[in-house]
Amino acid sequence: MSRAEPFMTSEQIVKQARKLSFKFRVEHGDAFHMDEVHPESTDGFKSDDKDRAEDMLQEGHSVLSDLQGRLYAAKRWGVSGQFYGPDSAGKDGVITHSLAGVNPQGIDVNSFVVPTEEELEHDFMWRSLRVMPRRGRIGISNRGYYEEVFVVRVHPEILRKQKLPPSLVTDHIWDERFRDIRTVEKYLHRNGYVMLKFLLVISKEEQRKRLLARVDNPDRNWKFSGADLRERAFFKEYLKVYEDAVRNTASPWAPWYVVPANHKWFARLVVQSAFIAELSALNLEYPKLDPEKERELAAARLELSKKR
Amino acid sequence: MSRAEPFMTSEQIVKQARKLSFKFRVEHGDAFHMDEVHPESTDGFKSDDKDRAEDMLQEGHSVLSDLQGRLYAAKRWGVSGQFYGPDSAGKDGVITHSLAGVNPQGIDVNSFVVPTEEELEHDFMWRSLRVMPRRGRIGISNRGYYEEVFVVRVHPEILRKQKLPPSLVTDHIWDERFRDIRTVEKYLHRNGYVMLKFLLVISKEEQRKRLLARVDNPDRNWKFSGADLRERAFFKEYLKVYEDAVRNTASPWAPWYVVPANHKWFARLVVQSAFIAELSALNLEYPKLDPEKERELAAARLELSKKR
Repeated sequence: MSRAEPFMTSEQIVKQARKLSFKFRVEHGDAFHMDEVHPESTDGFKSDDKDRAEDMLQEGHSVLSDLQGRLYAAKRWGVSGQFYGPDSAGKDGVITHSLAGVNPQGIDVNSFVVPTEEELEHDFMWRSLRVMPRRGRIGISNRGYYEEVFVVRVHPEILRKQKLPPSLVTDHIWDERFRDIRTVEKYLHRNGYVMLKFLLVISKEEQRKRLLARVDNPDRNWKFSGADLRERAFFKEYLKVYEDAVRNTASPWAPWYVVPANHKWFARLVVQSAFIAELSALNLEYPKLDPEKERELAAARLELSKKR
Repeated sequence: MSRAEPFMTSEQIVKQARKLSFKFRVEHGDAFHMDEVHPESTDGFKSDDKDRAEDMLQEGHSVLSDLQGRLYAAKRWGVSGQFYGPDSAGKDGVITHSLAGVNPQGIDVNSFVVPTEEELEHDFMWRSLRVMPRRGRIGISNRGYYEEVFVVRVHPEILRKQKLPPSLVTDHIWDERFRDIRTVEKYLHRNGYVMLKFLLVISKEEQRKRLLARVDNPDRNWKFSGADLRERAFFKEYLKVYEDAVRNTASPWAPWYVVPANHKWFARLVVQSAFIAELSALNLEYPKLDPEKERELAAARLELSKKR
């Protein structure tokens, strides 16, 4: 079957996207357990279904592009997508390939690396909140404020660099951060934001293979850093803090998608499906024209149809 | 008594500032009633004590300046002061005169006027949160996010311009905004912010006099706008929404100071006293030198004492 010939209607693609992404969507954290996530899983696909999945990804692009056009025209909701996962989990690739169909004018990508001096001299969500997308736009964060309960929790010595007043750094700090994240996300939702949080899960063995490929491949070894190997020693600790964060911060308005990511093609399809599912749930319509605007357009049509 | 000769120690000034400002500090909203606020009040001062109050303000400058120096050196806490009140309540003058002693390098003032298109396309606290002061600094807001439960509540038609998804604009919106403000302020506090919120209260008759003075005085009539007069018709409604906001958003970490402001000299002294009281409560010390730094300074002293 040629990739150029769509074999499903938009409605069917949306329905399929909802069905696929729903399996990985966590909106009530209590029931979530990391050991029930299988990085190798390609739920509903066989391991040799890669080509079929890539066809579906292509078809999804046009549906997602249309939804983004409606989001932009309606200018009511802002959509924020955050991506997390261990080194080499494929965050960059997922962002590139899942969202390739979206008009670049309607999407902004921010990568959050080690905080600057100025960022550390503010509240921990500051640098993320100030780049929240405008209404009608999609804002993508490659890492973001959850690193404050991921890497900082695995390496609590980082807390010291944050220059918090010592009296505020208590044993409750992680619970407080969860509570603060929950309430700020609720506030953002009440202001018209939809937040999608993606956790890409790979196995430790898959990570070993990918890091080794980085070391060996001259096109990729610029991506390798000694820090990757050091962090790898904390693989299990990361799974623990990921689990705790998902359990504490999943909500219907800011769900987590915990995505098996040993197979990149599968992870990309799930992420694209999640965007299609969440955007379509907003029931976005192009704004209706008011009668005055209708007349204006009719007059313009008449004027422009005169050949001169 | 000459103004140049201080007649009180710093400790006495701090103590006096705590005593004065405490009377107008609201940290538990339940007990607050606007009709117990008397705009004409000059608590503890006689109406002809203006000169004495101005001497005290002068003396307060050096104490506040010293506290701000410690705040800056410690670089742990950020201090945010917000100013509200009806037109002509004296916000600009209070900001200028109460904080005159502070090193301008350690303080930033933002005035929040009608929101821009970009601001409206974000959550309602966005424009305020992104200019929160860095640790060690004081950030002053001339108006701020409380206008979202003041002017927007008195004129709910403004809500329509905010481009919120219609499904989110419900009857509960003001309660939701109070809850969101409370939780965001709690989050900010946990990140090292002290927030002071000032409501300057004048009587309707005092406002009439001040607006009339604006109209008649060629040096001031640039400040007069027809909108001031239109808003004056809503004087009572504003008192109602002020009361509701104070009742719902006062907290120990983000108290309201409800300041009688018919007498400008009195309001200025109360505001300065509040800053002195809150900053001194942080017990700010200049950072202690570690032994290595001590040696470095000793070496520098030796080097610099050689005449050449």
